[in-house]
Amino acid sequence: MECVVHRVPMRDPGDASAVLRLIDDGLIAPHEIVAILGKTEGNGCVNDFTRGYATMALSAALAKPLGITAEEVPSRVAIVMSGGTEGGLSPHFLVFAVRDRAAGPSGGKSLAIGAASTPVLLPEQIGRMPQVELTAAAVCEAMKRAAIVDGADVHWVQVKCPLLTSERMAEAASRGTATATDNTYASMALSRGASALGAALALGEVDPAMPDDRAIGHEFGLWSPRASASAGVELLHSEIIVLGNSAAWSGDNVIAHGVMRDAIDLPSVIGVLRKLDFKIAGQLDKAAASRILAVLAKAEASRSGAIRGVRHVMWDDSDIQASRHARALVGGVLAGVIGRTDLFVSGGAEHQGPDGGGPIAVIARRLR
Amino acid sequence: MECVVHRVPMRDPGDASAVLRLIDDGLIAPHEIVAILGKTEGNGCVNDFTRGYATMALSAALAKPLGITAEEVPSRVAIVMSGGTEGGLSPHFLVFAVRDRAAGPSGGKSLAIGAASTPVLLPEQIGRMPQVELTAAAVCEAMKRAAIVDGADVHWVQVKCPLLTSERMAEAASRGTATATDNTYASMALSRGASALGAALALGEVDPAMPDDRAIGHEFGLWSPRASASAGVELLHSEIIVLGNSAAWSGDNVIAHGVMRDAIDLPSVIGVLRKLDFKIAGQLDKAAASRILAVLAKAEASRSGAIRGVRHVMWDDSDIQASRHARALVGGVLAGVIGRTDLFVSGGAEHQGPDGGGPIAVIARRLR
Amino acid sequence: MECVVHRVPMRDPGDASAVLRLIDDGLIAPHEIVAILGKTEGNGCVNDFTRGYATMALSAALAKPLGITAEEVPSRVAIVMSGGTEGGLSPHFLVFAVRDRAAGPSGGKSLAIGAASTPVLLPEQIGRMPQVELTAAAVCEAMKRAAIVDGADVHWVQVKCPLLTSERMAEAASRGTATATDNTYASMALSRGASALGAALALGEVDPAMPDDRAIGHEFGLWSPRASASAGVELLHSEIIVLGNSAAWSGDNVIAHGVMRDAIDLPSVIGVLRKLDFKIAGQLDKAAASRILAVLAKAEASRSGAIRGVRHVMWDDSDIQASRHARALVGGVLAGVIGRTDLFVSGGAEHQGPDGGGPIAVIARRLR
Amino acid sequence: MECVVHRVPMRDPGDASAVLRLIDDGLIAPHEIVAILGKTEGNGCVNDFTRGYATMALSAALAKPLGITAEEVPSRVAIVMSGGTEGGLSPHFLVFAVRDRAAGPSGGKSLAIGAASTPVLLPEQIGRMPQVELTAAAVCEAMKRAAIVDGADVHWVQVKCPLLTSERMAEAASRGTATATDNTYASMALSRGASALGAALALGEVDPAMPDDRAIGHEFGLWSPRASASAGVELLHSEIIVLGNSAAWSGDNVIAHGVMRDAIDLPSVIGVLRKLDFKIAGQLDKAAASRILAVLAKAEASRSGAIRGVRHVMWDDSDIQASRHARALVGGVLAGVIGRTDLFVSGGAEHQGPDGGGPIAVIARRLR
Repeated sequence: MECVVHRVPMRDPGDASAVLRLIDDGLIAPHEIVAILGKTEGNGCVNDFTRGYATMALSAALAKPLGITAEEVPSRVAIVMSGGTEGGLSPHFLVFAVRDRAAGPSGGKSLAIGAASTPVLLPEQIGRMPQVELTAAAVCEAMKRAAIVDGADVHWVQVKCPLLTSERMAEAASRGTATATDNTYASMALSRGASALGAALALGEVDPAMPDDRAIGHEFGLWSPRASASAGVELLHSEIIVLGNSAAWSGDNVIAHGVMRDAIDLPSVIGVLRKLDFKIAGQLDKAAASRILAVLAKAEASRSGAIRGVRHVMWDDSDIQASRHARALVGGVLAGVIGRTDLFVSGGAEHQGPDGGGPIAVIARRLR
Repeated sequence: MECVVHRVPMRDPGDASAVLRLIDDGLIAPHEIVAILGKTEGNGCVNDFTRGYATMALSAALAKPLGITAEEVPSRVAIVMSGGTEGGLSPHFLVFAVRDRAAGPSGGKSLAIGAASTPVLLPEQIGRMPQVELTAAAVCEAMKRAAIVDGADVHWVQVKCPLLTSERMAEAASRGTATATDNTYASMALSRGASALGAALALGEVDPAMPDDRAIGHEFGLWSPRASASAGVELLHSEIIVLGNSAAWSGDNVIAHGVMRDAIDLPSVIGVLRKLDFKIAGQLDKAAASRILAVLAKAEASRSGAIRGVRHVMWDDSDIQASRHARALVGGVLAGVIGRTDLFVSGGAEHQGPDGGGPIAVIARRLR
Repeated sequence: MECVVHRVPMRDPGDASAVLRLIDDGLIAPHEIVAILGKTEGNGCVNDFTRGYATMALSAALAKPLGITAEEVPSRVAIVMSGGTEGGLSPHFLVFAVRDRAAGPSGGKSLAIGAASTPVLLPEQIGRMPQVELTAAAVCEAMKRAAIVDGADVHWVQVKCPLLTSERMAEAASRGTATATDNTYASMALSRGASALGAALALGEVDPAMPDDRAIGHEFGLWSPRASASAGVELLHSEIIVLGNSAAWSGDNVIAHGVMRDAIDLPSVIGVLRKLDFKIAGQLDKAAASRILAVLAKAEASRSGAIRGVRHVMWDDSDIQASRHARALVGGVLAGVIGRTDLFVSGGAEHQGPDGGGPIAVIARRLR
Repeated sequence: MECVVHRVPMRDPGDASAVLRLIDDGLIAPHEIVAILGKTEGNGCVNDFTRGYATMALSAALAKPLGITAEEVPSRVAIVMSGGTEGGLSPHFLVFAVRDRAAGPSGGKSLAIGAASTPVLLPEQIGRMPQVELTAAAVCEAMKRAAIVDGADVHWVQVKCPLLTSERMAEAASRGTATATDNTYASMALSRGASALGAALALGEVDPAMPDDRAIGHEFGLWSPRASASAGVELLHSEIIVLGNSAAWSGDNVIAHGVMRDAIDLPSVIGVLRKLDFKIAGQLDKAAASRILAVLAKAEASRSGAIRGVRHVMWDDSDIQASRHARALVGGVLAGVIGRTDLFVSGGAEHQGPDGGGPIAVIARRLR
C-alpha cells in the first residue's frame, strides 16, 4: 500500500472543488480517499460553523464520485476540520489517499495511515475518563489499520472530538447527570485534553495509573508529544487518524515529528526538518520546500501569561480569543522557516505538548 | 554624544513604572531622555485608546523627574505609541536617551537619534501633499539634529501622525473644505502613507516629481524602505524620530535595516542581522540575542490577498482587522529567528516597503 | 391563493429540521414553499459563511421532499439568508408558502407574495446603474407574479444581492474592466445600495432621472421606504421577494410597513402596529403578540456619528463592525415593544430609509 | 443638602473637558463633587483600559480645581467607570454634586447620596465571603453618610470592585494561598457577584445565613434588586455609592427603581417611569425626557441561553463577549421608551436581579 498526500486550497468553506479536481485530473481515485483534514477560516471556537459547512460541502461533493449519499460519506472518509487561519495561514485541505502498490525497492519505512472512531460520546463522558479510554481504544484500532506495530513509529494522532452545547448539557441534566463543565467554551478544552490523554495512554506516553477525571484540564505535566485534538460542534463521536511510518507501506512519503517547547521554539522545528534530511540555513528554498507535503502543528497560549519570561496578552484579550492569537503566532514562526503559509496549525493544545508549546509533524517526500 | 537604548516592559498601558525604575536605578538621567517608543496592547486601529493612555501615563510619570508639568512633557520628549501586540508580541517601551560623552576610540559610526515635529496638520492636509511636504521638512530637521549628513546613514524614520475623526471631518466641512476621505479608518492609512512618502522625499527615495495627491494610498510602487508611520487619535501634528549611524556619535550601539519583500521574508531579516555580525543557524542563542536592543518592523496584509500565491484571509475577516493579523504573523516570523517577543512590530505599511512587506531595523550592541 | 407564513427556529446554520417538521406535521406541503428568509448567526459581513451554510443545508433538506436535487432547490424556492443576530436576536427561518384557496368572504386585501431574480451580475455591474436597472426589472416581474397592480400595495421588497470578492475583482481586471470599488466590504454596501435604488425605481419612489453611478453610495437623500437588501458571497445574481396586500389573494394575513427615522424611532414602529389594529400601551401582551407572524426591519449606524445629537461609537469601533452594533440596537428597540426576539433585523440600510433609520414591516393575522 | 446631577458627554476616554465646563460655567463648584460615574467606550471586559484612562484623565483634570494632586483626587471623589457602549449607547459622565441648601418647602424626600470604600481586598478575598462582608460594611457606611435611615429608601448601590489579574493570582500563590478562580475573566464575575451579595446583605435582601463561598457565582436565586457592580483592573479596593431618597435632603431630584425580569422586560421599565409620574404612550416626548437626569441599569445574557423560550447566541459567540451583546440589547429596549441613548447600562449582573434581567433606576426631576 502507498499513502498519497495532496494539499489543495479552498476558496471558502463551501468550496470542495479542488478535491474534485484531484479526481478529475486522475491524481486520485475516489475510493482511495481515506481521510481529509481541513483548515477552515472560522474562529476555531464555539460558533465556528465553517467546520460543519466544509464537512457538508465535502460530503455533497464526494457523494456522486463515491456512488453513495452525502450522509454516508463521513462514515467512509474520515473528515477532520479544524477552524482558524489567523495571521497568514491559508485555508486548505489535506487529502490522504491509499492505493495498492507492489512494495518497491525502497527498503525503508514509508508513510502509513489508519483511521477509526469512538462510539457516540454521552455529554457526561466528555472531558472525563470514559472519553480518555474510548479514545485510547480507537487509537489502537487505527494503529492496527495502519499496520503500525511499534508505537515509536506513530508520529501523529489527529483527533476530532465533540464539545458540549447548552442543549447537550441540558439533555444530560434532564437525566439527572452532571457534565464536566457548564461552560461551552471550556468543554472544548476538556474534550481536547481527554482526547490527548487517550492518545498518550494508547502510545504509552503516560503512566496508565496517572490520568483521572481530576487530572483532565489540570495536570498539564501529563501530555502527549504526538496528539493533536480539535473539538467541533459538528460531531458527537470522535474521529481518530493515526499517521506514522511502516515497513508494510511503500512509496516516497515519510513523516517525522518533534515538540515545540514554547510557541517560538524554532530549534525544535528545525530538528524535525533535519530528521527529514532538510538542510537549514534560514528559510527553505523553493526546491526544498516543494518536498514538504504537509505541516501539522498545535498552538497554545502559555498559561503562565509569558513567553520566555516576557508577558503576552493572549489570555487578557477579550476581543480575540487566546487560541486565535496562538495560531497566528505559531503560523508565523513556521512560515518563516518553511516559506509557505498553508500549514495545518490548530489551536488548543491541552495535554498536547508542554505548556505554551505543542507537537509538530512534517510529511515530506524522501530526499533521493 | 552617545545614544543609549533601554527596552522595558509595561504591565498595562497606564504603567510607566519601568521607565521610572531606569531613573531610580541610575541607568538614565531624566533630562537625557529624548524619545520613548511604546508598543501598547490595544487594537492598533481607530478606537485604540491605549496609545493615548500610555502617553498620559508617561507624561504624568516623567513630570516630576523633569521638573515640569505633565502637559509639558510631550514637547520635551518625543513620545510615539503604536498599538497592537497580537500573537505573542509583548507590550514594551523603548527609551532613547542621549548623554554627553567624549568620543571614544571606537572610530566607526555609532547610533544617532534626532527628533522633530510638524506643525498641527489641518484636517484637509491629512493624506495629501501638504502632509507629505511638512513631514519631509521635519525629517530633514530631525536628521540635522541627529548630526547625520549622509542620507544613507539614516536607517529608520519613525513617524507618529494624526488621523481624521468624525469631529475633525465635520470641522473641515463647516469651513467648506473637503477632507481626503470621509472614513475614519481609511484616514489612518492615508495619513501613514503621506508620512511615509514625506520620509521618502526627504531621503531621496522617490522622484520628487512623482508623489501627488492621487498617488497617496494608490501608487504603492512608491515606497520608503526606512519609514515607519503609525497614526493615532491622540495628536494633531506629526512626531518624527530619525535613527541612524553617525561618526559624530560615540558608544557601542549601531543600527542596520532591510526590507521584507513579503510577510514571511525571513532571508531579509537574516540579512539585517548579518550586517550586525550575527551568525545565523536557526534561532539566535541567548548570548547573541542579548546584544539586540530593539527590533523595529512594519507589517501589512498584501493587497493581492495572497502570500507567495497562496490565499490569506486577512482582508476578508470582518471580526479581526487585517493589520492585527499582519502584526501577529510578522511577529511570529521575527520571534522565531530572534528568540524574543518584545518586538516593535507596527501595522499599516502603506508606502513603507513593497505590498505585503515592510522595512525592518535592528539596533544592537556592536560585537567586540 | 393564500400566503401562509411560518416562523421556525434553527439550532445552528446547518439545521433545517424545523422546516422539515412543518412538512411532516402537515402544516405546509413541499411544493407550496415559494420563499424562505433566514436570519443566521454569523457576523453579517464579508466572511459570514453561515448564509451559504444555511442555504446549502436548506437545499439538502428540501431536495427529497421536492423530488429534485439539492442543486435545483434554489431555482425553485427563493432563499434569502441574512447574517447577524447580535444582542438578543434569535436565528430563525421565515417560510412563505402559497396554497390554492377559494376566495373567502374576507373582502379586503390579503398578504401576497412574488419572487423573481436578476440574471447573473457581472463584477463591473455591481454597485452601478446596470444593477439598479436589472433589479428594478426583477421587482416589476415579482409584483406581477404577486398579482399586485397598485405599487402602493407593495409593503416590502427583499433583495439578496451579490458582492465583490478579491477573486471576482481580479477576474474583471483581467478583462480590462474596473469594478466600482476594490474593497470587498465596501462592495457589500454598494450592492445593497444599488439594489435598494432598483426597488425605489420600480416603485416610483425616486425620480427616474436621479440615480446614476455617482449617486449610488453617496446621495443618501435617495431612498426607498420599502426596500431591504442584503449582500452575500453565496450568489452571483440577485433574488427578489415582493410582499404586499392584494385582493387577488385570500386568507387572514396582512402586511403593513413604516419607516424608522432613526434607530430608536419607536413611534414609527408603533405606527405600523396600529395600522394592523394593535393597541399599544407599552409591550404587546402575549395574546396580541401571537398575531404577529414576522417582523422585518433594516438597521444602520447613522453616518453623522450621533443619534439625536448624542454620539454613538459604531463607526469608530474597530473590534465590532458598525452593522453589528446597529442590528443589536434596533433589535432591542423592537423587542421591547413586541416582546419577542425572533425578529428579522438586517444590517446595511444604504438607500433604504433615511440616514441611521430604515424600513420596517410587520406581517400579522388580521384582528377579527 | 441637595444632590445635583449632571450628565455630560465625553469625546473619548481621555476627555474630561465637559466636567471642567460644568465648573467653568458655574453649574457646580469643584468641592461639591462627590462622585462621578462614567460609561466609557471600551469592551467592558478584562482588557478594557478605557476605565483606567478615564479615571486618570478625570483625576488630572480635577487636581487643579480641587487644589490637590491628581493622585489624591480618587480619595476625594468616588470615581466609578463602567466600560461598554455597544449598540447605540453613548459614552458619558454622571457627575453627582452635593451643596448646602436650606430645606425648602418641598416636604417630600429628595435624592440623597453617600459614598464609602472597602479596604484593599486581598486576591484570595475576591469572590469570597470576606469581600461580601467588607462590601456590606461599606454599604452601611455609605447609607449613613447619605443620611438614609430606612433601607427601603435606598434605590441604587453602585459598586466598583477589583478583579484578579494573572499577576495578582501569582502573588497569592507565592504566599501559598489559593484564589477563588485562576481565570481572569471569571474573576470579574465572582467579584461582581460578591459585591452584589454584600449590598443584598446590607439591605436585608437575603437571609444573612444564606450566602457562603459556594453560593457566590452559583446560587443565582440570591440577588439584590438594587445592586449594580462592575469590576475593573484599575483599583484594588471597592468603591461604593449609595443613591436613595431622604427627608434630610432637599431639591427637586428623586430616584426610583425596579427590576427587569428579563432583558426585554419593558413593562418593568415603564413601572419605574410611572413611579416618577411619567405618562407612557410609547416613547417619552422631548419635554418629558428632559426631566430624566440619569438612567442606571444592569444587563446580562440569560444563562438559559434563551429569552422567553427563544434562543439567543450571546454565550456561544466567541467573537463578541456575552456582556457586550447584553448591553446593546438592554440599551435598545431602554432607548426605545426613553428616547435617549446616554444611558448607564452596565454588564455582568451576577446576583443583581434575576437570571437574564437586572435592576434599573431612574433619577428625575420631580414633576411640578
